[in-house]
Amino acid sequence: MISSRIRGESLVGECYTDQEWFDLDLDEIFAKQWIFVATEPEIAEPGDFVTVEFGTRSVIVTRDSHGVVRAHHNVCRHRGARLITQPNGSTGTIVCSYHSWTYGTDGRLMYAEAQTPGFDKRCYSLRSVAVRTIAGLVFICFADDPPADIDDVARTVEPYLAPHRLAEARVAKQTDLVENGNWKLAMENNRECYHCGGHPELLNVFFPTWGYDSSDAIPERLAAVVDRYRRATTELTDTWTRLGLPYPRIAQLDTRPTGFHIEREAMDLAGESFTLDGTIACTRPLSDELPDRRLGRLSMHLQPNMWLHITSDHAVLFSVIPISPAETLVRTTWLVNSAAVEGVDYDLDRLTGVWEITNQQDADLVALAHRGISDPAYIPGPYGPSEFQVEAFVNWYVTRLRANLGLDVEQQSATDQIAESA
Amino acid sequence: MISSRIRGESLVGECYTDQEWFDLDLDEIFAKQWIFVATEPEIAEPGDFVTVEFGTRSVIVTRDSHGVVRAHHNVCRHRGARLITQPNGSTGTIVCSYHSWTYGTDGRLMYAEAQTPGFDKRCYSLRSVAVRTIAGLVFICFADDPPADIDDVARTVEPYLAPHRLAEARVAKQTDLVENGNWKLAMENNRECYHCGGHPELLNVFFPTWGYDSSDAIPERLAAVVDRYRRATTELTDTWTRLGLPYPRIAQLDTRPTGFHIEREAMDLAGESFTLDGTIACTRPLSDELPDRRLGRLSMHLQPNMWLHITSDHAVLFSVIPISPAETLVRTTWLVNSAAVEGVDYDLDRLTGVWEITNQQDADLVALAHRGISDPAYIPGPYGPSEFQVEAFVNWYVTRLRANLGLDVEQQSATDQIAESA
Amino acid sequence: MISSRIRGESLVGECYTDQEWFDLDLDEIFAKQWIFVATEPEIAEPGDFVTVEFGTRSVIVTRDSHGVVRAHHNVCRHRGARLITQPNGSTGTIVCSYHSWTYGTDGRLMYAEAQTPGFDKRCYSLRSVAVRTIAGLVFICFADDPPADIDDVARTVEPYLAPHRLAEARVAKQTDLVENGNWKLAMENNRECYHCGGHPELLNVFFPTWGYDSSDAIPERLAAVVDRYRRATTELTDTWTRLGLPYPRIAQLDTRPTGFHIEREAMDLAGESFTLDGTIACTRPLSDELPDRRLGRLSMHLQPNMWLHITSDHAVLFSVIPISPAETLVRTTWLVNSAAVEGVDYDLDRLTGVWEITNQQDADLVALAHRGISDPAYIPGPYGPSEFQVEAFVNWYVTRLRANLGLDVEQQSATDQIAESA
Repeated sequence: MISSRIRGESLVGECYTDQEWFDLDLDEIFAKQWIFVATEPEIAEPGDFVTVEFGTRSVIVTRDSHGVVRAHHNVCRHRGARLITQPNGSTGTIVCSYHSWTYGTDGRLMYAEAQTPGFDKRCYSLRSVAVRTIAGLVFICFADDPPADIDDVARTVEPYLAPHRLAEARVAKQTDLVENGNWKLAMENNRECYHCGGHPELLNVFFPTWGYDSSDAIPERLAAVVDRYRRATTELTDTWTRLGLPYPRIAQLDTRPTGFHIEREAMDLAGESFTLDGTIACTRPLSDELPDRRLGRLSMHLQPNMWLHITSDHAVLFSVIPISPAETLVRTTWLVNSAAVEGVDYDLDRLTGVWEITNQQDADLVALAHRGISDPAYIPGPYGPSEFQVEAFVNWYVTRLRANLGLDVEQQSATDQIAESA
Repeated sequence: MISSRIRGESLVGECYTDQEWFDLDLDEIFAKQWIFVATEPEIAEPGDFVTVEFGTRSVIVTRDSHGVVRAHHNVCRHRGARLITQPNGSTGTIVCSYHSWTYGTDGRLMYAEAQTPGFDKRCYSLRSVAVRTIAGLVFICFADDPPADIDDVARTVEPYLAPHRLAEARVAKQTDLVENGNWKLAMENNRECYHCGGHPELLNVFFPTWGYDSSDAIPERLAAVVDRYRRATTELTDTWTRLGLPYPRIAQLDTRPTGFHIEREAMDLAGESFTLDGTIACTRPLSDELPDRRLGRLSMHLQPNMWLHITSDHAVLFSVIPISPAETLVRTTWLVNSAAVEGVDYDLDRLTGVWEITNQQDADLVALAHRGISDPAYIPGPYGPSEFQVEAFVNWYVTRLRANLGLDVEQQSATDQIAESA
Repeated sequence: MISSRIRGESLVGECYTDQEWFDLDLDEIFAKQWIFVATEPEIAEPGDFVTVEFGTRSVIVTRDSHGVVRAHHNVCRHRGARLITQPNGSTGTIVCSYHSWTYGTDGRLMYAEAQTPGFDKRCYSLRSVAVRTIAGLVFICFADDPPADIDDVARTVEPYLAPHRLAEARVAKQTDLVENGNWKLAMENNRECYHCGGHPELLNVFFPTWGYDSSDAIPERLAAVVDRYRRATTELTDTWTRLGLPYPRIAQLDTRPTGFHIEREAMDLAGESFTLDGTIACTRPLSDELPDRRLGRLSMHLQPNMWLHITSDHAVLFSVIPISPAETLVRTTWLVNSAAVEGVDYDLDRLTGVWEITNQQDADLVALAHRGISDPAYIPGPYGPSEFQVEAFVNWYVTRLRANLGLDVEQQSATDQIAESA
């Protein structure tokens, strides 16, 4: 399979639809990059675990008895049985259901009945997976040599994230939505607001000017919005400065292995949260040290599979988990202050409503995109000015795929060769 | 994959069961031949459209604002989203749900928001598909160079079809039935009446002598039927002559790219229509100019995917749409005079009953055939004398596949090589 | 695909999960070895038949009008339709539903309507399949040259089986359970009792010492069980000797083409049958000539796809039928004396309860094993001392696969090459 790409245009169809390409994505992107798997509040106590599946790979992410976050392959070292089938829970030891081989939460084999005298338990620890926490976000990497720039990224984004105290928060809700489209379409869909006309609820508070590089390119009909956006930004910049919250946009989506984008942005109407009128959904602030209601949003993307928004009252995080060429799980997690009480401090439907609706709208659009792209009549089309982050995602993807496959990445000029495989 | 064929015997199993061969059928037969997609009454008014899917290909067939029948690929020129997901409807413009790119029914891009000044809308019309109407039947061809003999075919069959005024009729009912077998088995099943013992309802009016080339080959037990068939034919020939309706059989199933077969035939019992007693199902004639009740049937096959029967009171049309190697959609459309009123001029169950039952019986037989042919123990068997049109279909298929693949078609002698592919 | 195997360790994952390997298993193991398909009581009378499907292959096993057990490919010689779709029944002739070609139960074509004078029915008999009965068990082989050692095996096992009169028994119940794992995992699961902690109901009567080659390896916690097992064995040996029932273990799982294992073993508690307290489930003995209640169990495995247990009151037989790489049908058949009356001599739930529960527990374990083995993180692990029969099954499998593929089987030393294919 050989494919080519014209800069400024969408990828060819087979990248999204072929099983062979999907396997490549799992092996060369999801098994070699840092991927987001959970928030620390999901594994708050020793013995807490979550399991996440990326294709046939399954990882156990757990906090061991010393409080250390660890990740293990979810496969018994005896005859290979899957160890944990629940998506989350809490346990003192990891016991295989088949022949009762028993592992500690740190991965060591503690017990295996009826073995020969020479059997050395130390040779049969669970195979470990690289794990890394950043300000309450848990990332893993299946590769033996994970991208080293995660240290850089962590140093850069931690000052933005840390004041919001995600590690000390509590999960208010987590939902799983299966979209009928390729995972890359789910990511691309999140990189532009050119389609935001399809999100009337979100648009109450989300400025549709987002994603336009310069105001020149913004459509005439948005002139009034641009004005509101500028005033809100000016106001908020003072707040951020006063509170010592870093806010400048850092856009490194396609300039490093662990591509990311982080920024603070104003929001419309009351400007406080993702609700229909923009007022807070939770009366207790997410971080006890940031009681101001009107903080706008802190938003971060990290490739290949996550983005988040943090407002004064809650955080909402999204992870993208490929299932098949045409199926993608989008997991959404809402965090609130661990002391916030449902029904008292927040109404759950109000807290989650705007993004639940928006997620379903995005799922419908991704499904349409996948169906059309599967048609042999599809040919790559031109990105518009407000889709430059989609272009950046695609650049990153092509570069990573080539680099992880060991192919030359220098000659990325007008036409880029993506991949060659049997 | 290399395969061979012995004349007079059925095809080898992999032609019917392999995904690779199915893809070949879609790309080399369905994307290169003229295929039947709709009747004109389904798109009677400007803005009316139907969409039809052949594998991952989807086509929009529509009547534009000038009344011209057009066909477009159902794919947005921006980022490839599927444009229309409804099977049929009516619209002034074709608007993409993703980013609101808006096309005319003639395919021109009318609107795309927020593009750079240099953006030229004229470069982004919908990709068009060749379309051709013949006496009310709509055919499309996905190829850039459709088979040119369609002009010949049209000149030949239009005198047979035109008097029945299909373009001015109305759809009384349309049903979709998914058969669990390969599309070629659905076509072969329609090319012989050797299996008609399985159709007791149809046999009331359909002479089972159909498909026997000479009366010598007709089984003894059908002697009385042959006699009735001859008498009815003699009678009807006078009627057809009097009305100026052409009736001689034209059999060109395997002698041209657009293989077809057309003939008028007598029917049994009252000889008027496909009902249990052979009397008409609709009191208003299909064509106002042909009020005689007893016209027998005009039947046409056109390869690869359609056949029809027209009686004095209605027309019934069948299209075959491959879904997967083992799944085929058979769409049946009943047309009546546009002035006919359900419940007054016809009872819908009586109009459609015989073919609804017959279709299900055929679906069961096709499913049995597919299951057995999938067995490695299957070896091609001999066609009998009444299966010569099955043989003709298979000849046509092998010749078209080779020709469309650019392989030599001359050496079709005792053993024919069908195809070579990786 | 090339793979290697370390003796003493489980197979690599792709043997269990890849479609290509699954096709190899069907073609090189299931289409070339003797496989168990039915018991004679299922086809007791002339005209009785069962059909069994192995992938796309279907076989009709029937008793012809002369009482001879026969096996035919379930495919019409005309255009390949599947002939019989019911799993079992009784018929005088085999009539194709498509064009009514009619065959005798002996496979001869008796009738085909409307053929040319030269048509010779003798050329179109059903394609036959090799069939062999052993003491009431029916085996077939799809190959033209079935493994010849079946005669040897029959001579060896018939003296063990014959006294129990399986051919004269009656089917009390037959169940089909689809396990979500590869067929080899279902077979391996049955070759060891290291996992028997997962079978609390079965363990009431089944000594978990089974599968340990020497008592040295038996875990300490089973000391009391070993003691009971030895006393029960001593007692039963006298009974078996008195009744002339052969009992020594014959273990030829990996030393011949038709690998098997047969033995008589004591059972725990009352020691009579597979019930919660070990007493008989049917008051009428399976064989009228063996009225002793306490006979322990006669157990036989025969590769690739069957095992059975016979107690004084009933027999329970298991057959393993691959469906897909990750799906396996396990069919369980309970036989009782043909004169035993349900509700009088036995309660059906009590007769079948222990194995119904045990089957479901095994299905759950096989599914876990399959999921973990599908993970790229799976690497073969070490068999323990009580898993030597699993190792024997795997040895047999690798040897047979290589032999049936025509590869060298001599160099099976520390590392064995399994197979090479495109």
